[in-house]
Amino acid sequence: MVQTRSVRKIIVIGIGAGDPDHLTLQAVKALNQVDVFFILDKGEEKSDLVQLRHDIIEQHVTRPHRLVSAQDPPRDRTAPDPAYASAVGDWRHHRGDIYEHFIGTDLADGECGAFLVWGDPALYDSTLGILEDVRDRGTVAFDYEVVPGISSVSALAAKHRTGLNRLARPVQITTGRQLAEGFPEGTDDVVVMLDAHQAFAGIEDEDVSIFWGAYLGTPDELLVAGRLADVAGRIQTLRAEARARKGWIMDTYLLRRDRD
Amino acid sequence: MVQTRSVRKIIVIGIGAGDPDHLTLQAVKALNQVDVFFILDKGEEKSDLVQLRHDIIEQHVTRPHRLVSAQDPPRDRTAPDPAYASAVGDWRHHRGDIYEHFIGTDLADGECGAFLVWGDPALYDSTLGILEDVRDRGTVAFDYEVVPGISSVSALAAKHRTGLNRLARPVQITTGRQLAEGFPEGTDDVVVMLDAHQAFAGIEDEDVSIFWGAYLGTPDELLVAGRLADVAGRIQTLRAEARARKGWIMDTYLLRRDRD
Repeated sequence: MVQTRSVRKIIVIGIGAGDPDHLTLQAVKALNQVDVFFILDKGEEKSDLVQLRHDIIEQHVTRPHRLVSAQDPPRDRTAPDPAYASAVGDWRHHRGDIYEHFIGTDLADGECGAFLVWGDPALYDSTLGILEDVRDRGTVAFDYEVVPGISSVSALAAKHRTGLNRLARPVQITTGRQLAEGFPEGTDDVVVMLDAHQAFAGIEDEDVSIFWGAYLGTPDELLVAGRLADVAGRIQTLRAEARARKGWIMDTYLLRRDRD
Repeated sequence: MVQTRSVRKIIVIGIGAGDPDHLTLQAVKALNQVDVFFILDKGEEKSDLVQLRHDIIEQHVTRPHRLVSAQDPPRDRTAPDPAYASAVGDWRHHRGDIYEHFIGTDLADGECGAFLVWGDPALYDSTLGILEDVRDRGTVAFDYEVVPGISSVSALAAKHRTGLNRLARPVQITTGRQLAEGFPEGTDDVVVMLDAHQAFAGIEDEDVSIFWGAYLGTPDELLVAGRLADVAGRIQTLRAEARARKGWIMDTYLLRRDRD
């Protein structure tokens, strides 16, 4: 006798960079296929981010659904290499346990679960990698698909009304940790994400401009653009004040080197 | 006596990579502020792209509006450097003339005009640069803003369910012309756009994988992923067939080098 089991389905939905109107029509349709939303609570200080997810669900989901939440495992973002890589590995494994539990226990056969991801799931987000880890464990079977979202990179460029690349030239997207090792070779346009240490302040090239943004698309949005040498100090001050006031900050920036 | 003139406003709206549902809620709201849509007709072979713009306007715009169209100036995309740069310059200037006419003649004081841009206006699109050129001419005064869109890069990654970067590592976005000079230094993840000559076929590294997509988000979508050495030929065949069938192709791909 063949036992038929309907497969569990997961949708990873990019919800944009902070502005609820970054949501795509595709994301709204996807939200309305979901039985269970999985929410990771990142603790007090980022509770407005969790609230924004709840607001999106409340505003756009018109069918019955459940919310299941868990505490996001703590993560040491300040550890130096190679402790950093190890800390990330531990955190990822712990998060994998949570996902496995979500999918295996909180989702019934044939149901659809969803993770709502800030920005675009393809850029510096761990959700897809962790889902692959969980699939590799072989303990729960599921299919998944991805709905792209407006990244903070796109939102930054739009607010500054600039392209990311210049004509026929490349652009690199990288991290604060990488930038701390120097301006990347082979490109004069560099977008930096996940920079907790303001690595831009270590760039001493006189010909570099910066387009900086924090809390993009939200009422707290901050934007600064100018010659790096002229505005780096102002950005550091603004950033420290905002971080103290809100308890957290999400920022990103484009560095542009003028070779002429 | 002070003469009051209401300023003309332009919105550059990213409409996503081909799937009409890539449209964001912000884009739908922006579409409904527009008095005049400026459409550039790229000729017979790309008429389905123009049609998709018309469909989006028809489906989402609920207020009275006008459509103004012009023939996109021809562009020699096959010229070798430096003739390429010069051909682009001529094309850009000619397009600037069209924009200037659109804004100066087809838009009344206080009205809002819009350009609908495929993908994200920040990535390998000339609209923002040409608008700046036209502003610099000083012949017509206008303000403009940008609505970010889902880029073909995001759409590609979502369809292949992969991140663009790997953990804590950079990703570079570049052109086929640049890739033809070799795999960029300093990064093992490279997204290639505007590649008319299948530069991937010139990469001989055994450890490179490719995630390729064409007509992303449309009914004609093609996806291939695998070790570059194994699938490069298949992609070239598929691409040539599709291009012959439809008369045009828009494709993009991610190359990923495995260093381990």
